[in-house]
Amino acid sequence: MRDRFVNQALTKWMEGTGKESEIVISSRVRLARNLCDIPFPNVAAAEQTKAVVSQVEGAIKDAEIEQTSGELIFVNLEELEPLDRLVLVDKHLISPQHAEEAAGKGLILRADEAVSVLINEEDHLRIQCLFPGLQLEEAWDLASRIDDLLESKLDFAFDEKLGYLTACPTNVGTGLRASVMMHLPALVLTNQASRVLASLSQIGMTVRGLYGEGTDATGNLFQISNQVTLGRSEEEIISNLVVVATQLIDHERMARQVLLKETKPQLEDRVCRAYGTLTSARIINSQEAMTLLSNVRLGIDLGIIQGVSPQVLNEMLVLTRPAFLQKLAGRELSPFERDVQRASLIRERFSLDG
Amino acid sequence: MRDRFVNQALTKWMEGTGKESEIVISSRVRLARNLCDIPFPNVAAAEQTKAVVSQVEGAIKDAEIEQTSGELIFVNLEELEPLDRLVLVDKHLISPQHAEEAAGKGLILRADEAVSVLINEEDHLRIQCLFPGLQLEEAWDLASRIDDLLESKLDFAFDEKLGYLTACPTNVGTGLRASVMMHLPALVLTNQASRVLASLSQIGMTVRGLYGEGTDATGNLFQISNQVTLGRSEEEIISNLVVVATQLIDHERMARQVLLKETKPQLEDRVCRAYGTLTSARIINSQEAMTLLSNVRLGIDLGIIQGVSPQVLNEMLVLTRPAFLQKLAGRELSPFERDVQRASLIRERFSLDG
Repeated sequence: MRDRFVNQALTKWMEGTGKESEIVISSRVRLARNLCDIPFPNVAAAEQTKAVVSQVEGAIKDAEIEQTSGELIFVNLEELEPLDRLVLVDKHLISPQHAEEAAGKGLILRADEAVSVLINEEDHLRIQCLFPGLQLEEAWDLASRIDDLLESKLDFAFDEKLGYLTACPTNVGTGLRASVMMHLPALVLTNQASRVLASLSQIGMTVRGLYGEGTDATGNLFQISNQVTLGRSEEEIISNLVVVATQLIDHERMARQVLLKETKPQLEDRVCRAYGTLTSARIINSQEAMTLLSNVRLGIDLGIIQGVSPQVLNEMLVLTRPAFLQKLAGRELSPFERDVQRASLIRERFSLDG
Repeated sequence: MRDRFVNQALTKWMEGTGKESEIVISSRVRLARNLCDIPFPNVAAAEQTKAVVSQVEGAIKDAEIEQTSGELIFVNLEELEPLDRLVLVDKHLISPQHAEEAAGKGLILRADEAVSVLINEEDHLRIQCLFPGLQLEEAWDLASRIDDLLESKLDFAFDEKLGYLTACPTNVGTGLRASVMMHLPALVLTNQASRVLASLSQIGMTVRGLYGEGTDATGNLFQISNQVTLGRSEEEIISNLVVVATQLIDHERMARQVLLKETKPQLEDRVCRAYGTLTSARIINSQEAMTLLSNVRLGIDLGIIQGVSPQVLNEMLVLTRPAFLQKLAGRELSPFERDVQRASLIRERFSLDG
């Protein structure tokens, strides 16, 4: 039964390892790159798009790159079922846009999904490293080395003054977007989250929910990333984000201690009720599941709940998404059927621990 | 641990036995009687009140009565701690008024609390039989026999035309109030309860919540009693109520089948979540506890929850009341402390079963 989760669902970032993994779920670094003399994907002709895929696919099949990144597999998105593409979205590996319009798009993937290269999404290439815990430097280091090796074989569009050229001007320069996914339940419970997170925009950071732009911070999960890609070095961008993440970790830790000190019974009640509901419900929607999973995770972190592994939250983030539930069921499910399937999956997962 | 519940809390009506005990929690018959030539308790002088107590106490100590009713114990309410009096209220043995102003008031009680005689409450005597399940005839039969035996020794105020005279005109005549406590969750869930119960007033029945007049139907528990005491024979009053109760039982059973047939997953979800919350919560107020206990009881009745005894609802009705919680704690508790104590007691009780 465990296999079902491990084989079909787990990717590297869900492991719950890495530094500060109690609060930082994952760290991601993504580099936007484009080939010279070929229009950006949104305006490229089918032939040109095809040429990009074959150039990148050719370049990546390289002993030195594989030695650096691990074995990489090329996937033609057009050949995947729509549901499988949605699963890749749920795993944070491709964007929803990339999943919807698969024509001419490719994905290069390491088996543990910690390394991926998206071909012909918004840019010709997006090199992505996604690690568990606070591992921004590690992710940057690997992405950068893969980038260097690819650059030695491919002709990237680069301007002496502007830096790397990208389809969207917000990515011009370093082409680097770094982000951390943080679980900040105590900041939310102590009503500090909005204030603390709002202040981040003043220092060039963007805060989003779990599934990117325009999504809510369901489950007390916040994705914090750099706004600016131009005029700063990659190392500066990474180290700034590490500083911000570290401050948020301290803040969250303090808020947790305050909760434990000042409202312990209420906290225990919240956590235990969440566990009770998750292990009992027969029908549960995504929003409620995320909220309760967040409470349970907080309870695990604080020792209120024992015998349940902390990575259960990470796993459930993906396993309980509509696409994944339908993948498991092997067919399309109505919203009601998904809520039933979700409840059943959660009960099953918790019964493995505890 | 079981002793704690059994010895301190259980009374006959909580046993969950008797006919139709799936839906009818308890049946009660109460006869109001007054002694001739002594003013009603609310206007009687202290000396007169005392005289009533000693007359009744004397009359009850009778071999024939004890043979009929079982051994009876006299309790002087003045000698009880206020908290103990409140526990008697929670057990439906005395009224809140009786508990508050204990001066000159007495209570005669069988060990299993199924038979009681209240002295100097609203009337000089109230003879009460409280049985589990649908046992109105049985309760009436016993109350009537005790009444006859007492009447052979005491001079009851009786008018040829009006019947038994009582302090409140609504009790004049037979002095009989019969009631059933019914658990009607499916009628509530299918939105039929208000309509069905409202129609009862047209046929001379009163519907109240668990703790009498002015209380809500918390926990989907409804107390149905006769409005009229005058102009009908005791047998008519009892048999009318049996008919009404039987119809309500049929109605509730049908509604349960409809729920099972049409919304089984939702019903299971409701029941299982209720169980999950009750066995997990660390803080719970009385209202929520009652609602959830009602759902769990429904789940037990329908076989959705197994291994939990159905009488758990009956027990918890009393055990989770403020007075009882304070009695268990051995001291006065703040509302918050009660909510913590209640949650703990419920978890403990459920851990005995299942």
